[in-house]
Amino acid sequence: MVEHKPTVEELLKKAEKPSKLAVPYHQFYEGKVQVMPKCAIRTLDDFSIWYTPGVAAACKEIKADPDKSFFLTNRWNYVAVVSDGTRVLGLGNIGPEAGLPVMEGKALLFKYLGGVDAFPLVVRAQDPDDMIKLLEWVEPNFGGVNLEDIEKPKCYYVLEEARKRLQIPVWHDDQQGTATVTYAGLVNAFKLVGKNMKDSKIVLYGAGAANVRTAIVLITAGVPPGNIVLVDTVGPLYRDRPDIESMKKEDKWKYDLAMKTNKENNKTIEEAFKGADAVVGASKPGPGVIKQEWIKLMNKDPIVFACANPIPEIWPWEAKEAGAKIVATGRSDFPNQVNNSLAFPAIFRGVLDVRAKTVTDEMCIAAGDALAKFAEEKGLREDYILPTMDDWEVYPIEAVAAAEQSMKQGVARRILSREELYERAVNIIRNARESAKFLMEKGLISSPPPEEDVLRSYGP
Amino acid sequence: MVEHKPTVEELLKKAEKPSKLAVPYHQFYEGKVQVMPKCAIRTLDDFSIWYTPGVAAACKEIKADPDKSFFLTNRWNYVAVVSDGTRVLGLGNIGPEAGLPVMEGKALLFKYLGGVDAFPLVVRAQDPDDMIKLLEWVEPNFGGVNLEDIEKPKCYYVLEEARKRLQIPVWHDDQQGTATVTYAGLVNAFKLVGKNMKDSKIVLYGAGAANVRTAIVLITAGVPPGNIVLVDTVGPLYRDRPDIESMKKEDKWKYDLAMKTNKENNKTIEEAFKGADAVVGASKPGPGVIKQEWIKLMNKDPIVFACANPIPEIWPWEAKEAGAKIVATGRSDFPNQVNNSLAFPAIFRGVLDVRAKTVTDEMCIAAGDALAKFAEEKGLREDYILPTMDDWEVYPIEAVAAAEQSMKQGVARRILSREELYERAVNIIRNARESAKFLMEKGLISSPPPEEDVLRSYGP
Repeated sequence: MVEHKPTVEELLKKAEKPSKLAVPYHQFYEGKVQVMPKCAIRTLDDFSIWYTPGVAAACKEIKADPDKSFFLTNRWNYVAVVSDGTRVLGLGNIGPEAGLPVMEGKALLFKYLGGVDAFPLVVRAQDPDDMIKLLEWVEPNFGGVNLEDIEKPKCYYVLEEARKRLQIPVWHDDQQGTATVTYAGLVNAFKLVGKNMKDSKIVLYGAGAANVRTAIVLITAGVPPGNIVLVDTVGPLYRDRPDIESMKKEDKWKYDLAMKTNKENNKTIEEAFKGADAVVGASKPGPGVIKQEWIKLMNKDPIVFACANPIPEIWPWEAKEAGAKIVATGRSDFPNQVNNSLAFPAIFRGVLDVRAKTVTDEMCIAAGDALAKFAEEKGLREDYILPTMDDWEVYPIEAVAAAEQSMKQGVARRILSREELYERAVNIIRNARESAKFLMEKGLISSPPPEEDVLRSYGP
Repeated sequence: MVEHKPTVEELLKKAEKPSKLAVPYHQFYEGKVQVMPKCAIRTLDDFSIWYTPGVAAACKEIKADPDKSFFLTNRWNYVAVVSDGTRVLGLGNIGPEAGLPVMEGKALLFKYLGGVDAFPLVVRAQDPDDMIKLLEWVEPNFGGVNLEDIEKPKCYYVLEEARKRLQIPVWHDDQQGTATVTYAGLVNAFKLVGKNMKDSKIVLYGAGAANVRTAIVLITAGVPPGNIVLVDTVGPLYRDRPDIESMKKEDKWKYDLAMKTNKENNKTIEEAFKGADAVVGASKPGPGVIKQEWIKLMNKDPIVFACANPIPEIWPWEAKEAGAKIVATGRSDFPNQVNNSLAFPAIFRGVLDVRAKTVTDEMCIAAGDALAKFAEEKGLREDYILPTMDDWEVYPIEAVAAAEQSMKQGVARRILSREELYERAVNIIRNARESAKFLMEKGLISSPPPEEDVLRSYGP
């Protein structure tokens, strides 16, 4: 953990290493996920059950009731990780082929952390209606869809339409995933400073996919819309802003929020920060994007989430110097990482296990509350407001919370008890990790060659 | 092996068992393939290479050269098993959900026999142009496409157009797969009876996807088109048949063959069989579809392939009684099974290993020749004209043949030596089988419960 002022050079150097190793190691492994049998094959005779002639009986069952596809195939656990490659990481529109390493990596995280059989699906369909058509076409194969790295405002439209039309959960991780973990982090941060989040003023700095959804989730969780101020590159959103009409045309989601947030009608960034209890940055890489003098304008014990990657909007030690009580970032080498990987594998585990027809913001909140509670039970500290990926016990707990919320909202295709849900989630996740571990031990997944060797063989 | 007259009742009873067990076992396993890590994960820190921040370096490489997606991801080994569910097994148009158990089974065979990471993709796109659009959209994710269980004549059009537009191999297994193995079987059957296939008369009984492609493959392999007679439900195809104009409109592939096959202008089934050296049935389940009296009209040492499933067009012993010298069927419990599973896993292994841009009929022929030669080297007999799935050594040999043909035709994205190709194919296939075996041994893929238990828990 980097807790104290490293130099910028040190930090960049640290980030350089995985970047330097990534291409050679990707080349060595030629891929990050594979397909594997899930059923027993004792002899080739078993294929008469898994394939012709036996399989026809399973087909007939599903023909009579298509929902049986969630029980007689692995559909219930298949998630498509869909991207058109229009906004990959910080790299912009790099196209579907170039987006594939990210989607494969996501599928890897899905399996390893959540036991979800996610499969990458990068697509050349860039028109929003084409993307929706594609999702409708492939729906019969999947139990859920994870949208990823799609530019805005297309991503809002695709998510909204697909949620309406598909009878499986559709999720845009850059929206709901980020919003869930941000929400959980804020819940605990407010607990630590002894304030009620619902009476607080929250500035969302940056009005992209992440903060737009965070605003919606916070409002759904009970934060009065007027207490939230969204800030974009022009300044705070407010209902009479001169560009409000063009905003309405270009990004109706941002417009809707401009209409109902910011009850004080703050017009400058300084006004927005004045008296704010928390700021959540999801804007552009820093440092120096969120300024110390703005933090000094905030209410007592300010909460500062600076989540831009790879460099936060303000360095944690600068935020602290300016008076921040609790600081979170997107980086794994600082305390309090706001990390999507804490949410999507677990939430999908839960909604898939009950074969849910959708995933709602309320399920995100239920999972976020479970995440927050887990950290609280381990003991909240200024540098521990959220679990880390190492806290693997939190995943089944979150899964159960999301699944129970699905059942409560009447969108689950099957009802299981809390104990059944928990046991199932634990077993599936454990199986995924142990399978990977054993294949590695057996050399069926090769050990990585030493760095110097792989650099020599595949390096530039 | 059922070598002598079982009763029809005995045969149906035998086929009943896998059908009775299929639903309970499908329900027990809840799916037949899963997604598994392919790269090492020693600690969660490795995710900084496989995911952010490191992965961005791999994305950038591919952005600069999209073909690098075949080297830095598992794209090179991903095959989409695509079906719209319009003609699944003998069940007709049962829809995509009901087709999924078959596509999952196919993915299982792909992996277990060929080490190919095939993923099922059942789709709601039933319009032929929609299917082609879908394939173009998902192309960046895959190294190849296996079309499956799509009704004709749509399947010809989709295959032809997709082959033109996509830069990855597109294969319709019900066409090329069947044609490849039929071709290999015929090569050896003709060897055994001491005739030259190119001077022989061949009746293709049934003019659906399988026999239409078999005709094309035989012609490509050097059989004069005039020596082939295709028979559909009306009778032999010939250029002046009264329905030739409607055939032209409805099925141009059949029409094209009607124009150039059947040089004797046979107009009745009896004329077609008269003097024929071989008949290949790919029509409808028998028995009694191909008649003994027709076989009696054939040339000396007739070759009879009766490939309809589950019951051949004529029972093997009936064909023998009528004088057939060599008989093949589609069933695993009779000798000489014409089994697609001998072709698709191996041909894809080969074309994927050289990252081929297409799969041609010449590659099918090269693989078919390798298949035939393998059986020949083991020793041809009237009841052994083709390898069986147990002959696993044949798969890498066929793969090398298909790969070498790809390189020869200039459609390979990379060039490897015969030794490299062979070693690679052996290792990949061995890894697939050992991974499955090992996961079973460790209980990470459960052992199947005894039949009586699974029937009690999940039976009707």
